[in-house]
Amino acid sequence: MKKSALQRVRAEYQPKLPKSLQGPVKLKVGKATESVANQEDIKNLFPHTYGMPVVEFERDENPSRLEEPFNVGIILSGGQAPGGHNVVSGIFDGIKSLNRESRLYGFLMGPSGFIKHQYMELTAGYIKEYRNTGGFDIIGSGRTKLETPEQFESGLKILKELDIKALVIIGGDDSNTNAAVLAEYYKSKGEDIQVIGVPKTIDGDLKNEWIEASFGFDTACKVYSEVIGNIQRDCNSAKKYYHFIKLMGRSASHIALECALQTQPNYCIISEEVQAKRMTLDNIVSALCYMIAERAKLGWNFGTVLVPEGLIEFIPSMKKLIQEMNDVLVEYAAELEGLEELDKLRAIHSHLSEGNKELFKSLPKDIALQLSLDRDSHGNVQVSLIDTESLISRMVAKRLEEMEEEGQYSGKFATQHHFFGYEGRCADPSNFDADYTYSLGFNAAMLINAGLTGYMSSVRNLTDKPENWIAGGIPITMMMNMEKRHGEMKPVIQKALVNLNGKPYLKFASMRDTLMLNTLYQYPGPIQYFGPAEVCDRPSMTLLLEHGKEV
Amino acid sequence: MKKSALQRVRAEYQPKLPKSLQGPVKLKVGKATESVANQEDIKNLFPHTYGMPVVEFERDENPSRLEEPFNVGIILSGGQAPGGHNVVSGIFDGIKSLNRESRLYGFLMGPSGFIKHQYMELTAGYIKEYRNTGGFDIIGSGRTKLETPEQFESGLKILKELDIKALVIIGGDDSNTNAAVLAEYYKSKGEDIQVIGVPKTIDGDLKNEWIEASFGFDTACKVYSEVIGNIQRDCNSAKKYYHFIKLMGRSASHIALECALQTQPNYCIISEEVQAKRMTLDNIVSALCYMIAERAKLGWNFGTVLVPEGLIEFIPSMKKLIQEMNDVLVEYAAELEGLEELDKLRAIHSHLSEGNKELFKSLPKDIALQLSLDRDSHGNVQVSLIDTESLISRMVAKRLEEMEEEGQYSGKFATQHHFFGYEGRCADPSNFDADYTYSLGFNAAMLINAGLTGYMSSVRNLTDKPENWIAGGIPITMMMNMEKRHGEMKPVIQKALVNLNGKPYLKFASMRDTLMLNTLYQYPGPIQYFGPAEVCDRPSMTLLLEHGKEV
Repeated sequence: MKKSALQRVRAEYQPKLPKSLQGPVKLKVGKATESVANQEDIKNLFPHTYGMPVVEFERDENPSRLEEPFNVGIILSGGQAPGGHNVVSGIFDGIKSLNRESRLYGFLMGPSGFIKHQYMELTAGYIKEYRNTGGFDIIGSGRTKLETPEQFESGLKILKELDIKALVIIGGDDSNTNAAVLAEYYKSKGEDIQVIGVPKTIDGDLKNEWIEASFGFDTACKVYSEVIGNIQRDCNSAKKYYHFIKLMGRSASHIALECALQTQPNYCIISEEVQAKRMTLDNIVSALCYMIAERAKLGWNFGTVLVPEGLIEFIPSMKKLIQEMNDVLVEYAAELEGLEELDKLRAIHSHLSEGNKELFKSLPKDIALQLSLDRDSHGNVQVSLIDTESLISRMVAKRLEEMEEEGQYSGKFATQHHFFGYEGRCADPSNFDADYTYSLGFNAAMLINAGLTGYMSSVRNLTDKPENWIAGGIPITMMMNMEKRHGEMKPVIQKALVNLNGKPYLKFASMRDTLMLNTLYQYPGPIQYFGPAEVCDRPSMTLLLEHGKEV
Repeated sequence: MKKSALQRVRAEYQPKLPKSLQGPVKLKVGKATESVANQEDIKNLFPHTYGMPVVEFERDENPSRLEEPFNVGIILSGGQAPGGHNVVSGIFDGIKSLNRESRLYGFLMGPSGFIKHQYMELTAGYIKEYRNTGGFDIIGSGRTKLETPEQFESGLKILKELDIKALVIIGGDDSNTNAAVLAEYYKSKGEDIQVIGVPKTIDGDLKNEWIEASFGFDTACKVYSEVIGNIQRDCNSAKKYYHFIKLMGRSASHIALECALQTQPNYCIISEEVQAKRMTLDNIVSALCYMIAERAKLGWNFGTVLVPEGLIEFIPSMKKLIQEMNDVLVEYAAELEGLEELDKLRAIHSHLSEGNKELFKSLPKDIALQLSLDRDSHGNVQVSLIDTESLISRMVAKRLEEMEEEGQYSGKFATQHHFFGYEGRCADPSNFDADYTYSLGFNAAMLINAGLTGYMSSVRNLTDKPENWIAGGIPITMMMNMEKRHGEMKPVIQKALVNLNGKPYLKFASMRDTLMLNTLYQYPGPIQYFGPAEVCDRPSMTLLLEHGKEV
């Protein structure tokens, strides 16, 4: 691989570690924990790993023993997030700091490599090529769900063969849930295999009192904000388009909210608010048309609108429709198989209840088709495939025509659409994510050495300097509750949606009316690695606000 | 305007100037020039400004006179390009360096501000806010064509009212052509008004022996290459999609070629090659399917394909169709007005010649509709509105199905589509563009002070250090030839398409087969402003190769 000029220089960056991890560590053990809800159920499901204490590392001023070497296996699970390679190099450096004889194995292309025994040893020379770079290409990632005893047993074989003491699963909420199940499984079987999770997802929805941020969110939002800022500068220079910009993030609107805080668009839809206020598509369109008509009065026929990709499922009426469609698609799968587009829509329509029939029929054909596509492996609509931004802008255009006829609007409405997702998931990590992921990985090595299993690597106090970050471990069961998945109650890590009482949302809400009727765009520019700290090392605005800092 | 952290720091950047402009200058005058073609015609059309010499500035070691103050007006014309604000600040600093009493006026929202007398004085404090930033929002831009005597006369009034000695038009090939026409007009009328052009366009097609680069190309390509690189890293991590990425650039494929050189995708279509080899859509699809089938044999069902936005007009059969459609849309405008989509397509079809009828009918409906949209003010198809990337990927999918049935292909083909344009036109300029544009502006001030008109600001030797850049002026008529526009022969600056004998194309061509059947993606990362020179100050690969440098 020929490296770009930036890669060559960036490879030399030494990520920062918390002070507590900069030498031998000792463990500070807290009190026994409870899960966030459904304590009895979770306890019954995790008899061997429930109730474990939160732990924290401190610098050990009097290290007493030489550490034994041990082998570790890692899996990158699910969608890419900037910093994954630094988790790997952090684990590597961590285990090597304990004993040079320790080894690291990477399972290839996600959990399937674990199940199918496809792996490689990660050596110092190989890892060097990937330090501080984006992507998961070091060993690849995959979406196979690790959840059956057969998979666990198959994995166990290779773990034993390679004399692996611990498996680190780098993934989102589902993957970390599975890490906990696997930890419990091995412990219940008396197998001496530890499982540690690392919180990864650009979506920002794996977050709670103990996990301040999932890695990759910071970098991805900065990339999206860079290009949104550029589009806004174009918008304000040419003054002729409304740009509708859809942003990845699955269900939660964290990414859209963070980007809105960074770039100050004229409008940003927050799915969680739509749901809480029981808004319809029509309500959203009305709000946008009001803004557009008011801006037109000021002579401004341009603006920017951010749309979270998960929106459609948060509109209560749409959610009801989608839920029924989920069932219809399964129940009538055989009938629907191979039908032409229009016939498929007709068939689905015929199986819907009366209330949903009407809404389904009112949708543009292309949107109805997108909603009828196969579900993902979690049984969810693949929201990134639905052109929500185009659906909304077409509805707005239609409404504006009506308003114009009624004399309520006079202006020009021309649009551009954008969807950003793949542009940010594999960006080179920001200094924040580079440091955070390296620390998470290094810390995971210490959790393994401490003999822990069923823990998530936790690095906290993230708006302080890295040296003051707090490193330790959180029992995964502590973050769990019971939720219905595929019709069954399952133990899962609670997904964090945007908190409408939280400071990030409230900050945005306080600016919102001003942003609509003014043009106050911010232009964050590209991620910088070499400049002054205020440019290079700043964490996300979401995190700063959540920690009570000024932004 | 609240500034981002990067903006605040970047505002302090002092762009570099050629040595010759770092103090009093004297003029070195070359020989009389000729236009590149149609010399007699051009000479007849520009009797007062034809044949002027190329000029160059040298440092004046014995400056003799105090300069008189003079006022300058500027127009930003056409699409945004990174660095426009630095042209303005360069002109400002240039005229102020000659005499503090000189003043700069900006005409608002492009040529229309000049015609309608909408302007503002640009003061030191106002300009300070825009130094080293992207966008044209300092005074706005517009696409009004400045070409009629009435417009010239209306502009003349405001120039006189403001005591403006010279007008600087910052624009692409058409705008600079109009600058030459305006210069000739004022001179022929005996008006003492100078007109100077500045070469702007991200498309890179305003380029010739004397103008090495148009500004903005460098930055825009770097932004696109950043996100293409990120997508490629994602592609190579997840290994499940073919990403079809369309890039702005109007007719020419310079942007696609530069991005291909920077990122090494698996495939990049070059429109000029398609035209030269008389390729059909079918040929392009075949080439892609060959690559996809071969990669599938290697187990790789993923890849990246760059598509230049102007492609469709370079496919000879499509070009013929579009040309006839241009006429049909004008001739039958009344009949087509207000028709429903399908009726409009039928009506257009009925007016086409036999050969084109068939091709038109073979196009997917949405693409046929996109081709039937209104033309831009130059009478061109708005290529950015045609989903070429989707057209091609759908044709590829269909062909692969056929190949699979015939046992010639076995693999998965899933796609993602992207279009990058607005993401880069207003990015903060790279160091190269920041220095280049500031120098172009400063140099324009010197051309004005030298009493020249009908010249384009020229800064050359651009792959050397800025201090060694060569500053001067090129008579615009020198770059002209006669071309047919809207059915009439007009004097225009020759548009530079990708030269199939040029080093940038040949470099790409030499790697092409290797890139198709391997995965050799490059990840350039975001533009850096503060790091080592090899990361921050590197010009485009196109320019480096054109100057015979290694890349």
